[in-house]
Amino acid sequence: MAEINQEEQQNPSILWKHRNAIEEALMSMVSSDDLNLKSMLRYHMGWEDQHGNSTVSGTGKGLRSSLCVYACEAVGGTSSLSLSLAASVELIHNFSLIHDDIQDEDTERRHRPTLWSIWGKPMALQAGNVLRVLADMGPQQLNQNEVEPDVLASYSKILTTACLEIIEGQFLDLSFEGKTDIGIPKYIDMITRKTGALIRSAMHLGAISGTKNPRDIESLANCGHYLGLLFQIRDDYLGIWGSDKETGKPTGSDIIRKKNSLPLVYGLERADEPLKRRIRQIYSQVDIQSDDVDMVIGLLEDTKAPEYVNKLALENANKARKAIEHVSLIPGAYADLEELLDFLLNRQS
Amino acid sequence: MAEINQEEQQNPSILWKHRNAIEEALMSMVSSDDLNLKSMLRYHMGWEDQHGNSTVSGTGKGLRSSLCVYACEAVGGTSSLSLSLAASVELIHNFSLIHDDIQDEDTERRHRPTLWSIWGKPMALQAGNVLRVLADMGPQQLNQNEVEPDVLASYSKILTTACLEIIEGQFLDLSFEGKTDIGIPKYIDMITRKTGALIRSAMHLGAISGTKNPRDIESLANCGHYLGLLFQIRDDYLGIWGSDKETGKPTGSDIIRKKNSLPLVYGLERADEPLKRRIRQIYSQVDIQSDDVDMVIGLLEDTKAPEYVNKLALENANKARKAIEHVSLIPGAYADLEELLDFLLNRQS
Repeated sequence: MAEINQEEQQNPSILWKHRNAIEEALMSMVSSDDLNLKSMLRYHMGWEDQHGNSTVSGTGKGLRSSLCVYACEAVGGTSSLSLSLAASVELIHNFSLIHDDIQDEDTERRHRPTLWSIWGKPMALQAGNVLRVLADMGPQQLNQNEVEPDVLASYSKILTTACLEIIEGQFLDLSFEGKTDIGIPKYIDMITRKTGALIRSAMHLGAISGTKNPRDIESLANCGHYLGLLFQIRDDYLGIWGSDKETGKPTGSDIIRKKNSLPLVYGLERADEPLKRRIRQIYSQVDIQSDDVDMVIGLLEDTKAPEYVNKLALENANKARKAIEHVSLIPGAYADLEELLDFLLNRQS
Repeated sequence: MAEINQEEQQNPSILWKHRNAIEEALMSMVSSDDLNLKSMLRYHMGWEDQHGNSTVSGTGKGLRSSLCVYACEAVGGTSSLSLSLAASVELIHNFSLIHDDIQDEDTERRHRPTLWSIWGKPMALQAGNVLRVLADMGPQQLNQNEVEPDVLASYSKILTTACLEIIEGQFLDLSFEGKTDIGIPKYIDMITRKTGALIRSAMHLGAISGTKNPRDIESLANCGHYLGLLFQIRDDYLGIWGSDKETGKPTGSDIIRKKNSLPLVYGLERADEPLKRRIRQIYSQVDIQSDDVDMVIGLLEDTKAPEYVNKLALENANKARKAIEHVSLIPGAYADLEELLDFLLNRQS
């Protein structure tokens, strides 16, 4: 079991309060097998190095699973039931990361070589598929004496629907490649599915496991939706203006990867024809050189893209706050959310 | 809707009796969407060409879905409920085919270009993932008034477990690559998961939807297990001795692809040291030339591999027959199975 280190204790309490319990739930779902298939998963999750030795490097923030447990407790539930759902949500997230890395041919994640870069794409493809299956098995293995069958069925339905939305989001993201006329509404639709859906589902599931009040459940799910958008919007900011020391990626990495991230979508919407032509021309190159990266960053800054991105992040933080203002949460839950919002708005990695 | 053509009517009745109803269930699960994601799926399923025009080429045999409906009717059930389960099983099969084709970089399936070879691997990866999600949604969307929630949950569990086994089987298959000391037991374990599990699950689900008798359900599931092995064993035979006109693949295609199929596993178990060395040497080449293919085929024939493969197929046909001999099936059900066994033992494609 990874101990919480000092760096993690600087994170907002939502992210570390149940960290160990969630890791324990995850580890029991990804326990050893006789096929060596799960050792790939244990590497990806950051519990083992590629030779099967225990390690503590490379685990993620655990945002989604933490929000699931937070939502359960915030509405007055106990965390034990939500832990298993939280683990399923985290596994689905990691399923999508493994397939994403194959798709984008990314060689590094969380400062370690990606799964496919060690075991090859075919093996990594199957490892990703297994994580998705293990996630499904989560609700299926919950005690039927403790949870009504129709509630169990609703858990599965929410997870399955989130999966569909993530995949649709990744598909949209792929279909945006090479286009320079996306526009903000289509971009928001894409990240609503790619990132928002699972974070929404995490809080939705947590809330269902903690209360029977449908209005409160809906409110927490909506809060998750806005937190998801906020998370992705900040990610897009860091993908261009993040420092490599913090993010582990070079400044402007999203430009090098020709991603249609928010600053670019906004910049292209604002740009005049000559500027659009210039950006299109740079994006049409096979490899984008650092001079060109600097040029695009400069052009985006001229359109005030960073200010717009930060403003949109702030708007979504406000909407997340507003979504639950009429719910009576347990003491401390609003303060915990405020701390998380502050973190999501200002994080550097 | 694809009409049943003459060629298909020569197939055993299990494979065409409910063909149109199954296709209809499948089509409703893969209905159009606004993302163009499902048009890839409709191409893969053989209902559309790559430009979205209706076509009737490239649909599969539908063995798994047909066996699901067969099992339901054989135990006295009505086919309406099993149709939806049959469609889910068929979608899971096609999910695994799409990912298989990416993994093996196969450019042709059912005499048409594979999905990834048209849309690229990233898009095809996501399309495969969506089929798996749509399959999950099948039982989730069944009418809860018609089926008890715990029965619905058992449907989902069977499908999820089958998925896990397929993935484990594909993983084992990959991990066998380059090895020349697999041995028959490990090979049987691999195909039990890769191919047997889903065909077993198809009949398991069909039987559950048709009867409440646990012994009959178990018997039909076991019959499915042996049919699955029989199907894969014949596939392995055709992968070496099939004619290219019938299979659409060159003779010896499994040797060209360095597959550890049954004839090779058996041949290597039987071969003496010099012969093993010779085969290992050929398999270690980057590309296997047609002279070498002929040489390996000759060596396998010397070990009487084709006779062994056919004997093992026959043994599994007998076990499939025996698995259900004490069940009282509806009139005609045994004869239908006999006809299917004959087809599976002798099929040329």
